[in-house]
Amino acid sequence: MKKISLLGATGSIGIQTLEVIRAHPEKFSIHALAFGKNVHKAMPLIKEFRPKLIVVQDEETKELVTKEVSETVVLSGSGGLIEASVADEVDVVVNAILGSVGLPATLKAIEAKKQVAIANKETLVTAGHLVMDAAKEHGVELLPVDSEHSAIYQSLNGENSRDINKLIITASGGSFRDKTREELEGVTVEDALNHPNWSMGAKITVDSATMMNKGLEVIEAHWLFNVPYDQIHVILHRESVIHSMVEYVDSSVIAQLGTPDMKVPIQYALTFPERSEVPAARHLNLEEIATLHFEKMDMERFPCLRMAFEAGRQGGSMPTVLNAANEEAVQLFLEGKISFLDIERHIEEALAEHTRIHNPDLSTILSIDEETRKRVRFHLN
Amino acid sequence: MKKISLLGATGSIGIQTLEVIRAHPEKFSIHALAFGKNVHKAMPLIKEFRPKLIVVQDEETKELVTKEVSETVVLSGSGGLIEASVADEVDVVVNAILGSVGLPATLKAIEAKKQVAIANKETLVTAGHLVMDAAKEHGVELLPVDSEHSAIYQSLNGENSRDINKLIITASGGSFRDKTREELEGVTVEDALNHPNWSMGAKITVDSATMMNKGLEVIEAHWLFNVPYDQIHVILHRESVIHSMVEYVDSSVIAQLGTPDMKVPIQYALTFPERSEVPAARHLNLEEIATLHFEKMDMERFPCLRMAFEAGRQGGSMPTVLNAANEEAVQLFLEGKISFLDIERHIEEALAEHTRIHNPDLSTILSIDEETRKRVRFHLN
Repeated sequence: MKKISLLGATGSIGIQTLEVIRAHPEKFSIHALAFGKNVHKAMPLIKEFRPKLIVVQDEETKELVTKEVSETVVLSGSGGLIEASVADEVDVVVNAILGSVGLPATLKAIEAKKQVAIANKETLVTAGHLVMDAAKEHGVELLPVDSEHSAIYQSLNGENSRDINKLIITASGGSFRDKTREELEGVTVEDALNHPNWSMGAKITVDSATMMNKGLEVIEAHWLFNVPYDQIHVILHRESVIHSMVEYVDSSVIAQLGTPDMKVPIQYALTFPERSEVPAARHLNLEEIATLHFEKMDMERFPCLRMAFEAGRQGGSMPTVLNAANEEAVQLFLEGKISFLDIERHIEEALAEHTRIHNPDLSTILSIDEETRKRVRFHLN
Repeated sequence: MKKISLLGATGSIGIQTLEVIRAHPEKFSIHALAFGKNVHKAMPLIKEFRPKLIVVQDEETKELVTKEVSETVVLSGSGGLIEASVADEVDVVVNAILGSVGLPATLKAIEAKKQVAIANKETLVTAGHLVMDAAKEHGVELLPVDSEHSAIYQSLNGENSRDINKLIITASGGSFRDKTREELEGVTVEDALNHPNWSMGAKITVDSATMMNKGLEVIEAHWLFNVPYDQIHVILHRESVIHSMVEYVDSSVIAQLGTPDMKVPIQYALTFPERSEVPAARHLNLEEIATLHFEKMDMERFPCLRMAFEAGRQGGSMPTVLNAANEEAVQLFLEGKISFLDIERHIEEALAEHTRIHNPDLSTILSIDEETRKRVRFHLN
């Protein structure tokens, strides 16, 4: 029985993680549930999974929750997330929090030698060197939850990472893949949230439309699999059937394929190295799909992907700036304050204005993150 | 340094095995070369690889070869093949002989605990239960050389065979995939030998056109991977880019992809569990290929595949009959003595006339094999 702390319980990945846990009561139980402010969504989950610890974003939410479940410990903020990540009883920490706010909890979970299932890609983008150094030091393996990274992880199973020739990450192209740059001028939030293949949270769906999601994945893959950027290749694959691939030195390519169901990679991260049935998973039917398409990725059409590769190659504090500027700009777009194409303009400006710091420590990263967000908001006015 | 006995040195797989060995003199050397009668093709190979032992098909060929290389031991026939397979110095036996004649050598190699790279699929079809029982008893792992089985083997890397949901073997469809049954009436040997994707020997190319090759592969996969026939699925995939796949219980599918180059699976069987560069291998370029197609396999259009599944499910001596009738009928077709569609008629008759023997031993198998071949020739007159 694995005891799990789930950070980000009311988000898309959180809810699907709970579906997996619900389907395997003999394998998993919940120790802690952490969520932001959505008490309405969280209360039935708390009643069902009866966590020993609840963590919420702020004091106000904490009061609301405490009224409802007087017998359970309720904590708030970053300290609470860390508490949930290091508790002795916990075997696995699923970090499905959105954004770089998930970073300190990930680091503490690693230090406490917990198995970490990581859906919070911003953590690795913003501070990949710190996270991977800590993982190495404490002998902890990070299990990716992102479908692309899970595919690569599965394609590396039983192989020697020395034999990797390149990673091939597939991209569906997002909601705007068939629009020209000109047509992107007038797109709305509603348009952006209409992803062709995957049902996901708002932030990642917008990231898919700008192709920044793929850029963040490239940086995440660089860190998770210790592969140089020149050996990471992105390919447009509309059907999202091949979730990603690894090419080896002998020219063999190993790929993981499936239907677009996040429960599969989530469960794999929890059951690894074993597999077991996924509740209500549809099995892939290639005869029915009939055709898979592959196209070259156009870096001019998708400048966010180009910027992510550049920031990744430059390294140091540049990916922190890339990520913070993107998080803030996407938030502004979702709030209706900037246009879709403004997202990439804000990121480009933030990167241009930043002077790279080599090998930043945690406090430097957190302050660059905050500074970048302020700068993006400042440029708005 | 692995010392290799290569059975079937002048065939398509044999020549490509020698290309792999030539490219890695630090990894491999030849102990024995066995071939049939093609002295002209064999002599330069003998001079280059300087085997300690040469095995040929008959006494006449033995005399011819002995004249040329007086300092090397030359043996002939089945005894010679066995000698090459069990010699103390040998680490790996590559069995690339055509047809069920390769069976006794495979069994002896297993008993001598050699690593066996098996390109001789007829061995597993005709006596899978004996071969796998021997492999289990002597703790020997059979390494498949067929591209489909190598793909499955690679897709099983690091996985637990308990988690297999099904094997998905891809079929290009062979040279006649776009012809109707009616159009098959008049096809020639030359037409049949024109395979759209792979460059292979004559027998396997005809087997591809009848789809018997896929049928033999299904039976081979059943034995190699210990998977019931109901969990083996064949899918038409024209481009031969996905060489085969494994679907797991969690609905994840792992696949191996590549360009059609037999040197890749041959080398994998020799270097396993390591990989290294394959001489002159073209790397897969999915952007260039652009589209992959998948279609349902039509068992009415390809009765040889249906018969192979049936013979496999019936088990016992039925696959021996299937294989022997096919080998003989293909030979008759290549000799211009029967038509293309006669091949499947001969197999169907041979299966109908045979009374299944449960769990046949080696001598029973060899006599059923011989009897079936005679019967096919008899029906000709």
